[in-house]
Amino acid sequence: MAVTRLTIVGTGLIGASLGLAARGRGVEVAGWDPDREALAAAVERGAVEAAESLAQAVADAELVVVAAPVASLPGEVAAVLGATGEETTVSDVGSTKTSVVAAAGGSPRFIGGHPIAGKEAHGAEHASAGLFEGATWFLTPTADTSPARYKLLHRFVVDLGAFPHAIEPSAHDELVALTSHLPHVLANVVVNQAGATQVEGHDPLENPGGSLRDMTRIAGANPRLWREIFLDNADAVRAGLAEHRRRIEEVERALERRDDEFIGRWIGEAAANRRRMLEVAYGDAGALQRVQIHVADRPNVLAEVTHAFGAARIDIRDFELDHVSAEQGGTLTVIVSGEDEAARAQALLESEGWSCVVSAVLDEG
Amino acid sequence: MAVTRLTIVGTGLIGASLGLAARGRGVEVAGWDPDREALAAAVERGAVEAAESLAQAVADAELVVVAAPVASLPGEVAAVLGATGEETTVSDVGSTKTSVVAAAGGSPRFIGGHPIAGKEAHGAEHASAGLFEGATWFLTPTADTSPARYKLLHRFVVDLGAFPHAIEPSAHDELVALTSHLPHVLANVVVNQAGATQVEGHDPLENPGGSLRDMTRIAGANPRLWREIFLDNADAVRAGLAEHRRRIEEVERALERRDDEFIGRWIGEAAANRRRMLEVAYGDAGALQRVQIHVADRPNVLAEVTHAFGAARIDIRDFELDHVSAEQGGTLTVIVSGEDEAARAQALLESEGWSCVVSAVLDEG
Repeated sequence: MAVTRLTIVGTGLIGASLGLAARGRGVEVAGWDPDREALAAAVERGAVEAAESLAQAVADAELVVVAAPVASLPGEVAAVLGATGEETTVSDVGSTKTSVVAAAGGSPRFIGGHPIAGKEAHGAEHASAGLFEGATWFLTPTADTSPARYKLLHRFVVDLGAFPHAIEPSAHDELVALTSHLPHVLANVVVNQAGATQVEGHDPLENPGGSLRDMTRIAGANPRLWREIFLDNADAVRAGLAEHRRRIEEVERALERRDDEFIGRWIGEAAANRRRMLEVAYGDAGALQRVQIHVADRPNVLAEVTHAFGAARIDIRDFELDHVSAEQGGTLTVIVSGEDEAARAQALLESEGWSCVVSAVLDEG
Repeated sequence: MAVTRLTIVGTGLIGASLGLAARGRGVEVAGWDPDREALAAAVERGAVEAAESLAQAVADAELVVVAAPVASLPGEVAAVLGATGEETTVSDVGSTKTSVVAAAGGSPRFIGGHPIAGKEAHGAEHASAGLFEGATWFLTPTADTSPARYKLLHRFVVDLGAFPHAIEPSAHDELVALTSHLPHVLANVVVNQAGATQVEGHDPLENPGGSLRDMTRIAGANPRLWREIFLDNADAVRAGLAEHRRRIEEVERALERRDDEFIGRWIGEAAANRRRMLEVAYGDAGALQRVQIHVADRPNVLAEVTHAFGAARIDIRDFELDHVSAEQGGTLTVIVSGEDEAARAQALLESEGWSCVVSAVLDEG
């Protein structure tokens, strides 16, 4: 490991996971949390060695990572910078970057960070050494940052199995506003609108359909965390929402004048954008085929299907079981690559008595 | 089966699947499609027996189901009603109901229908006898409808393994505007906004994150089908979008004045609505736990995990593999019921060398 002595300030899920990951790689890890119970939980989990105070925790650290809630980050980072000297590099793991970078006041010793992981869970008791494996980890060096310290932090992130991605603090906040904060706002708005509307006695939430469920998966998640994120990144989120409204109005006007051509072009544009997004994840997005079967509400169907696919050496690219209800069962979706592979999957499933539907993941026809 | 002689007008995916399902249950099925290739494909698939003309197809039918594209439905249904007499009940499977019910002009022989199934695929070659198993199937009888005919159609739908749900035509269109059409519009708008925005050289679609991907799964889907649905249901969709914009503006204003209390209350409302929606699907939504592991990009991991869960008799409620990239691997999410079951799953996975994170599906803390 690039770092040998690490201090974690804030020992919730992310802090404790960082402790476990670093300790598992031989790093000496001290921890501090103003909440004594949170600190005790992290010690119990084996994630950190408890310090007696913030000052004791950060003394001698090569790297201090502040894993405090977003609203407390600026204050905590400033306090850590004040309590440490030249030997110490400081970073954080908050979901927004502008305010915390500003609080560091141009210190060459601070570099903001944001691993994309773990927003669903909280508490050291759920910490996991593997939380950062494969995760994108934004780093926000500025013109004031010491290049040697950036290099140290970059290596530390790579050592944890994550993928560092350097970006300006304000660009980071605009980017996550679009890719994460805006989707969270929309999920909340959509589920609240459906929940507030009774259509002649029919409740939209009682027969939601797959698209409403997909779109509202992240609705209402982790309220304490998200309240702070929305407020801290309020300006970028507002700008994203204003543009969203402008685009919605454009669609409303096209629907009002029954503009077939606009609607067709607009769906085509969405298909092309989705294709571009999926190419990053799959490389061969255009070849992906969706194989869907209806499954009754009984155990072992998953094991049976995955076992059958494994035995036939059909490579499963993605996989999803969506439960509808105990009465109605659910849908199992398997993504495979190529029409031949889809035909093999279909033949296999049908030979086992499952009736399936095959469709292209990207269907622009 | 309640019906012994069925005619299907329009032999694409839905029509041909209906043919397969009915034939598999001993029903005599005639088919007609103005597109001779589509008709030949359905015959090839064994879904229908080809008629020579619409008139020949519908002669003597007990039930005619019109499975034409949304824009052609009103004309086709009127034509079928004109070509048939008292012995024949007529229905359809379109995604919107107001316009087609109006085209039936109060005929007691027509009842609108809409099975929630199969919008991803098209063509008789992908037809499946199991397409309607477990599916919700809206039926839209009116005051003019013959009760005996409604009863016949209701039994037919149940015989196919689907779940009939009676609703007024206009209420149906408002309901699906909220649960399906609005989510589709938003998915297109969100992916187009992300695709059109470069943030200081960073492309949001190249690092989308899970929430943007979930929210845009249905973006750009099946353009021909969706163009017709949006235009046919334009008024209900516009009303839904206007209300959506109003709610977005409310959030923007709360963010502008940094209204912590509003944001907290609003997220809490979303959490309660999501809980209500999930209770329908799971009964015990509050007990659901999410167990997540990072998986590298290699085959067989799914079979290994499902096999291990099966052997330990841990009941998998839902299941999902989300691929991020070949380099970064993906996340496997398993939903189980109860904290004890989650702890068993975690211990099992960790004994096999997987590090996992557990969180409550509904986390309102």
